[in-house]
Amino acid sequence: MATGLLITFEGIDGCGKSTQLNKLADWFKSMNREVLLIREPGGTTIGEKIRTILLDKKNDEMCSITELLLYEAARAQIVSQVIRPALSEGKIIICDRFFDSTFAYQGFARGLGSDMVEGLNKIATEGLNPDITFLLDITAEEALKRRMGRGEAEDRLEAMGIKFQQDVREGYLKIASKDSRIKTIDASKGIDEIFDDILSEIKKEIK
Amino acid sequence: MATGLLITFEGIDGCGKSTQLNKLADWFKSMNREVLLIREPGGTTIGEKIRTILLDKKNDEMCSITELLLYEAARAQIVSQVIRPALSEGKIIICDRFFDSTFAYQGFARGLGSDMVEGLNKIATEGLNPDITFLLDITAEEALKRRMGRGEAEDRLEAMGIKFQQDVREGYLKIASKDSRIKTIDASKGIDEIFDDILSEIKKEIK
Repeated sequence: MATGLLITFEGIDGCGKSTQLNKLADWFKSMNREVLLIREPGGTTIGEKIRTILLDKKNDEMCSITELLLYEAARAQIVSQVIRPALSEGKIIICDRFFDSTFAYQGFARGLGSDMVEGLNKIATEGLNPDITFLLDITAEEALKRRMGRGEAEDRLEAMGIKFQQDVREGYLKIASKDSRIKTIDASKGIDEIFDDILSEIKKEIK
Repeated sequence: MATGLLITFEGIDGCGKSTQLNKLADWFKSMNREVLLIREPGGTTIGEKIRTILLDKKNDEMCSITELLLYEAARAQIVSQVIRPALSEGKIIICDRFFDSTFAYQGFARGLGSDMVEGLNKIATEGLNPDITFLLDITAEEALKRRMGRGEAEDRLEAMGIKFQQDVREGYLKIASKDSRIKTIDASKGIDEIFDDILSEIKKEIK
């Protein structure tokens, strides 16, 4: 049986994660691999309920530590209920956001610090790491332009504004510079060019 | 202005916490103190939403770490939004369960260990401790008898059965033996006798 792979996609809202992860899923399917597409927070019944609390704009009194703990709770559930079983069945798991988001959003942009986030990530994942992570890098201004072009409604975190998205991007670039697992992809390019960059990294990984 | 006090009540389900904490609230009110009665998990809009996820019997696939993180998320919210502001206004806060529950239920009965729980409790409370804690101690058998007498519907945790409640009790007694903040009260006595025991501890505390 083929070895399972956990591939995660990261980046600020509007960076083009959804387009690329769907293309990658199709590519793996064309290679006759079983693919599981999931998203964080969510991906389980319990996780989707947690997601609803996290993204509801009415919950504007939520404190940063509550937010962090809720993300980790959803993560613990999806790791134990979905990701670990799927890996052991040899599936390709493509995840829209994983624990690097928590470093960038809560640890860096919210200022909770990377030590607290790292400790909680370890608790929630029980030590599981992605095999490869794509950071789709784009400026906050460009991402906003794309989202406005799509006429998307904002959720609670997206409504934090451009300065917050800039901080998140900076957080991502910081962790990417320290960890070779994270492949930074220039997401200002065209869709097909970006996908070529992703695929060349994937081919190195599964070779 | 009088100093605020955080008083917490602990014990297995059916130990008589609600009766006693209401009596204590009435006593403080008769002394012209402003009293805030709260419960964990819950006590805030966000916390009550988390409580609903935690206690819903349909969520039986919830893993222990998710459960632990959800309790801590609700705790972080109530500490920052309710308890700290009320303490600084000099109020008496009486809380139905607090972080000792997490030691007894998740740390001990669920077997997650006290180190993980202690670290998370510190993150969620940002170091806040109760001034005094009452552990209403009763056997699991006696507590079950009382709950059945009241014809109460079980929630997800109560449905874990008598062995689980025995483990929780054991966990409580273990932490109480190590911490003078926790006053273990024999809750097999009559309501008024139990309250006398509580009151004598309170009088020592506020003297």
